[in-house]
Amino acid sequence: MPQKIEDVYGNIKQYINKTPVMTSTTLNKLTESSCFLKCENFQKMGAFKIRGAVNALLNLTKKQKDKGVITHSSGNHAQALSLAASFFNVKATIVMPENAPKVKIEATRNYGGEVIFCGNKPLDREKKTEELIKQHDYTLIHPSNNWNIIRGAGTASYELIHETRDLDYIFAPVGGGGLLSGTSLAVKELSEKTKVIGVEPENADDAFRSIRDNRIYPSTNPNTIADGLRTSLGNITFPIIRDNVHKIILVSEEEIVKAMEFLWTRMKLVVEPSGAVSLAGLLKQKESIRNKRVGAIISGGNIDLTDFFAKFKGVENNSKQ
Amino acid sequence: MPQKIEDVYGNIKQYINKTPVMTSTTLNKLTESSCFLKCENFQKMGAFKIRGAVNALLNLTKKQKDKGVITHSSGNHAQALSLAASFFNVKATIVMPENAPKVKIEATRNYGGEVIFCGNKPLDREKKTEELIKQHDYTLIHPSNNWNIIRGAGTASYELIHETRDLDYIFAPVGGGGLLSGTSLAVKELSEKTKVIGVEPENADDAFRSIRDNRIYPSTNPNTIADGLRTSLGNITFPIIRDNVHKIILVSEEEIVKAMEFLWTRMKLVVEPSGAVSLAGLLKQKESIRNKRVGAIISGGNIDLTDFFAKFKGVENNSKQ
Repeated sequence: MPQKIEDVYGNIKQYINKTPVMTSTTLNKLTESSCFLKCENFQKMGAFKIRGAVNALLNLTKKQKDKGVITHSSGNHAQALSLAASFFNVKATIVMPENAPKVKIEATRNYGGEVIFCGNKPLDREKKTEELIKQHDYTLIHPSNNWNIIRGAGTASYELIHETRDLDYIFAPVGGGGLLSGTSLAVKELSEKTKVIGVEPENADDAFRSIRDNRIYPSTNPNTIADGLRTSLGNITFPIIRDNVHKIILVSEEEIVKAMEFLWTRMKLVVEPSGAVSLAGLLKQKESIRNKRVGAIISGGNIDLTDFFAKFKGVENNSKQ
Repeated sequence: MPQKIEDVYGNIKQYINKTPVMTSTTLNKLTESSCFLKCENFQKMGAFKIRGAVNALLNLTKKQKDKGVITHSSGNHAQALSLAASFFNVKATIVMPENAPKVKIEATRNYGGEVIFCGNKPLDREKKTEELIKQHDYTLIHPSNNWNIIRGAGTASYELIHETRDLDYIFAPVGGGGLLSGTSLAVKELSEKTKVIGVEPENADDAFRSIRDNRIYPSTNPNTIADGLRTSLGNITFPIIRDNVHKIILVSEEEIVKAMEFLWTRMKLVVEPSGAVSLAGLLKQKESIRNKRVGAIISGGNIDLTDFFAKFKGVENNSKQ
C-alpha cells in the first residue's frame, strides 16, 4: 500500500468535487436505521471514477506523462481518464469496440480523450491496447486492477467517514472491484469497527463466487442492467476484497430497478443502475442493519433516461406492484 | 407585511430541510455566469410548498387549530398542507376533483390529509370548499394568495442569499404567484441589488399579461406540462409582484423540457416541469446575465418519470439536438 488514504485525498482533492452525503427520513423509517448516501452521482463526470483517474495521473513520471495514457473501456472509466488526463495536459487514448454506444464515444471525446476503435470480440480490446502500447509506449491505466485507481476510489469513503463518523456498515457495489477494495482499505485505516459489504448483481455474480471459492472467476457475458459491474476481479483487487470485506451479497435485477426508483422518486437523485446497487443491497439487509448507522456509496449517475424508459418500462411497471 | 423574513425563517426552520445550493461547471460555462440552484426538490415532500404550509399552521389560533384547515389542490400544496398539519396534530381536509390522479390522492392521504372529492368543473372545488367551511368552521389555507404562504415561500431565498450572497438575479417560477411574490419581498429585505425575474410558461401566460396590463387575468385551461403553474395571480400576490419583480419572461414547452433534461443529465437532479421553469428562463436570458451571479429556485421534484416518458418521449427525443 503506497500511501496513507489521507495523503491520497490531500493530493486529489483540488481536482474533484466533495460530494454531498444525503439522508432521507423515509429511508431511515423503512430500514429502522440511519442511512447516509455518499452521492458520487454528483461527482465530476458523474461518477467516483475521476478519483482514481486523477490519482493515477498524479503518480506518473514525467516521461510517462509525455508519452500518454491508455485504457480500454466504454464506460465511466473512459470518461474519467480522459478528463483527468486533460487536467495535466496528458494525452489519453481510449480503446472501444466499434459497437460502443454513440453517446459514450461522444462523451469521451468531449472530455478530450482520443477514441480508437477495435473489433467487438472480447479479446479484441486487449489486443488493440497492447499493440498501441508497443507502438507508442503509452502507460496502461486499468479501470480497476491498479493500485492508484483503488486508492483513489477509497477517498469517497474518506469523505464519507469524516462527515458521518461511527458507521457500522458501508455498502459498495462490486464489478472489477476497484471501488470495493479501495473502500475496504480506507475503512481499515480510518474506522476499524465499520464492516464493508460488497453488493453485486445476481446476474454477474463472479466476485461472489470468486470469494466463496477463493479463486478468480472471469465474468462471462453477464446479463445485468448494471453495466458498470460486468467486469471481473483482478489479481490486485481479489486478495484485498478477500481479506478486508465482511461479505458480498447479491441483488436481483428487479431489486436494482426498485432501488433506482426509490432514489429518483423519494430522494430526487438521478442514479445509474450500478449506482443504485449498494442501496439495493442495503434494503435487502434491512433485518441485520436495524438501529445501525449505515453508509452506502451511490457510485454514479450516468444514465440515458429516455433509453432506460424505452427498454425497461416493463420491469419498471411490474416493480410498481 | 406581518413579520421580518428572518423571524419567519426562525419559526419554520425546525420543521423543514435546509436544501442544498448546487452548482455546475457546465452550466457556468454555458451561460458565462455563476449560477446557484436552490434545490427545493430536496425539500420535505419534494417541493418548497412545505415552507408556506408550516408558516400558515404556526400562525393559527388555538381555536383554528382545533377546528382544522382546508384547501383545494391536487398538487404539491395538498401534500404540503397535509404534512404540515400532521406536525401540529391539526386536521387537514383537501378538496380534489374526482378525476385527480390516483398518485396525488394517495400521496396526500399518506401525509395524513383527508381527501374530499368534488365535481370536475372549475367552480365545483370552490363550492365544495365553501360548503365544508360553513359546515365545520375550517380555516382556508389558499395555495398562494395568503400572506403566511407567501412569507413562508420567501424563506427559500433567505437561505439562498445567506449561502451565496451578492446575487445579481434570482429567477423564480410563477403560477399563483406565492413563490414569486414571497421571493421578491425576501429579496427586498435582504439584498436590494438583486433583481427578481419571474418565469412563466408561454402556454399559461396570465401573470405576464396581468402585469403588462395592470389587471388580474384568470388562467383559463392552460395547456402546459408545468402543472404547478396553471393557476392565476390573486389580489395579494398581484400587487406584490407588480411592485417588486423586475420582469416576467415566458418560456416554451420545449424550453421547459430541455431545462429538465439538462438538470437530469448534467446535474443528476430529478425535477418536475414547474421546477425546471426558472432554469429555462435563466438559459433564455443568457445574454443579459453574462458575468453575473445568478440564483434560480428549482421549486420541486415531484414527477412520475414513467408517466413522463410515456407521454413526452416524442418531445424529449426532438429536443435532443
